[in-house]
Amino acid sequence: MSVFAGPADFLAALSTLPVVDAGAIAAAAARQAQLTKPAGSLGRLEEIALFMAGWSGRAIPALDHLQGIVFAGNHGVAARGVSAYPPEVTAQMVGNFQQGGAAINALARACGAHLAIVPLDLHRPTQDMTQAPAMSEEECLDAINAGAAAVDPRADLLFVGEMGIGNTTPAAALCAHAFGGGGADWAGRGTGLDAPGVARKIAVVDEALALHGPDIRDTFEALRRLGGREIAAMAGAILAARLMRIPVLLDGFIACAAIAPIAVAAPGITAHCIAAHCSAEGGHARLLAHLGLDPLLHLAMRLGEGSGAAVAAQLVRSALAAHAEMATFAQAQVAGAQVAGA
Amino acid sequence: MSVFAGPADFLAALSTLPVVDAGAIAAAAARQAQLTKPAGSLGRLEEIALFMAGWSGRAIPALDHLQGIVFAGNHGVAARGVSAYPPEVTAQMVGNFQQGGAAINALARACGAHLAIVPLDLHRPTQDMTQAPAMSEEECLDAINAGAAAVDPRADLLFVGEMGIGNTTPAAALCAHAFGGGGADWAGRGTGLDAPGVARKIAVVDEALALHGPDIRDTFEALRRLGGREIAAMAGAILAARLMRIPVLLDGFIACAAIAPIAVAAPGITAHCIAAHCSAEGGHARLLAHLGLDPLLHLAMRLGEGSGAAVAAQLVRSALAAHAEMATFAQAQVAGAQVAGA
Repeated sequence: MSVFAGPADFLAALSTLPVVDAGAIAAAAARQAQLTKPAGSLGRLEEIALFMAGWSGRAIPALDHLQGIVFAGNHGVAARGVSAYPPEVTAQMVGNFQQGGAAINALARACGAHLAIVPLDLHRPTQDMTQAPAMSEEECLDAINAGAAAVDPRADLLFVGEMGIGNTTPAAALCAHAFGGGGADWAGRGTGLDAPGVARKIAVVDEALALHGPDIRDTFEALRRLGGREIAAMAGAILAARLMRIPVLLDGFIACAAIAPIAVAAPGITAHCIAAHCSAEGGHARLLAHLGLDPLLHLAMRLGEGSGAAVAAQLVRSALAAHAEMATFAQAQVAGAQVAGA
Repeated sequence: MSVFAGPADFLAALSTLPVVDAGAIAAAAARQAQLTKPAGSLGRLEEIALFMAGWSGRAIPALDHLQGIVFAGNHGVAARGVSAYPPEVTAQMVGNFQQGGAAINALARACGAHLAIVPLDLHRPTQDMTQAPAMSEEECLDAINAGAAAVDPRADLLFVGEMGIGNTTPAAALCAHAFGGGGADWAGRGTGLDAPGVARKIAVVDEALALHGPDIRDTFEALRRLGGREIAAMAGAILAARLMRIPVLLDGFIACAAIAPIAVAAPGITAHCIAAHCSAEGGHARLLAHLGLDPLLHLAMRLGEGSGAAVAAQLVRSALAAHAEMATFAQAQVAGAQVAGA
């Protein structure tokens, strides 16, 4: 379990990211070539098996401990009318998570994930980022460390999700700061905002960028000024997972936005990540393109909570089952492809 | 369990297809509207839940008995060099299926499917369709009925897959006859054919179309002249499932091609079908468009065996888990969306 002593410690980690085990990937690829199927015919399932081999360091990776974590935070900017739901829904939904009644509970059970729920100071919303930095240095570091601490070192695959009324707004601001453009490029309908609400949201993002842009000198400052507790926690969890070589299934727009400021400083952050899905939130496809990630699923989901990642986790299970359980051509006494001209 | 007394009986079934239970869909939609999530935010998972409700006739459909069936057949046309693998691989792979060592075995275990393996007269390949009809009337009817008989009436969801060296060639011929175009429009690389092989395949498809096209007056004749035993069996299974209101996850190019001649006569055949995936086989995307189906997955798979459907079956499990297990807003005491202007 990693925790960061201060912003400098967090930033230093970005320049020492562990890399994939190329030997394990080669061994997994050699195994794939012997399995009873035409070469490459399982498509992305084969890529997933190699990816999991590379991060587990094993030619035949397992998925014995799939962890999901849902972080929740409240946002001062919600008072600006940027969500279709009132802010008290964040705490109400955390109660729903804890009682097992939310979508992510059902989807986590379906994929066999151990689910942790981490509410972050819900009674203390962040500051309205159009008026001040969303968090103090200490608050942001605490959130990052809460995220890092929540990662189970035994996990062989992690996904993180979020709940926080209003949080597509800071997510849009983080994307705009990281990859350019303004509120109109990154703000979408969120949970179902009407057109005047989207217009307010665009204005809020642009105000926040104008206020903080000149002062953001590093990844930590971006998270602190434009983020939120659950967003900083996801960034901390994804980074901590990398330090432990635990691969990550990225969920939707907000989970991906959490690593946008990391990706600017350390583009290699995405190497241990698979994009679970492309959501219906407008900016997500663009964000995935900037991150260089090709999402596994396109199901028009837009719920958050880690829901898309939980669905995609089943594809990882399928990929690893085929990789581990299939017979080789020799074992099954099946003839291979004919050599051309033979 | 349905069996067809003769071609006329089979054709008559196409004009009396059962339709979906609109009341169950309405009840499922009413339930979705109360679940603790923004309306529509589970995207296609919500559509799947309603689809399953409509065919099960239950507002909260279950997936207690998922059945997969792999049909296998051999093809006279394989002697024309249209596959990268020798014809004896069909029987060898059936042995592999029966011993549990193939991709579909691992993937069926991963999705919790009961898997049946149905080899169809492997020692008697069909006739080379460039020289004669692939099957006699009796052979084709036997294959259709073997497919129909293999469907478990208890199944609440079915997928069918196939194994048959050379069978993308008859599949391409069936598509071309059903939807127009020639060999060049529908013949692809199959299991990994080289360019001269693809050229041979295109020529073979065009020869078969020229020989049989004028004599194909109905769906049965298309299956008989251009199909194969496993293809006719899949058509029989998918039709029998419809007669029992069992929904079907369609697999790849060949499984979809099996219903192409049915879809020409009875376009409503696809109403109880979900396209599991779009495969890497060139003609599949075009075929799905002709069938009016939007595939759940795009994973560049091209194996057959029902493998793509087995992966997609996990998405159905996720969809039904969310639909059945989530709390309502009232149960969880979560506030709904704010009314605009309230």
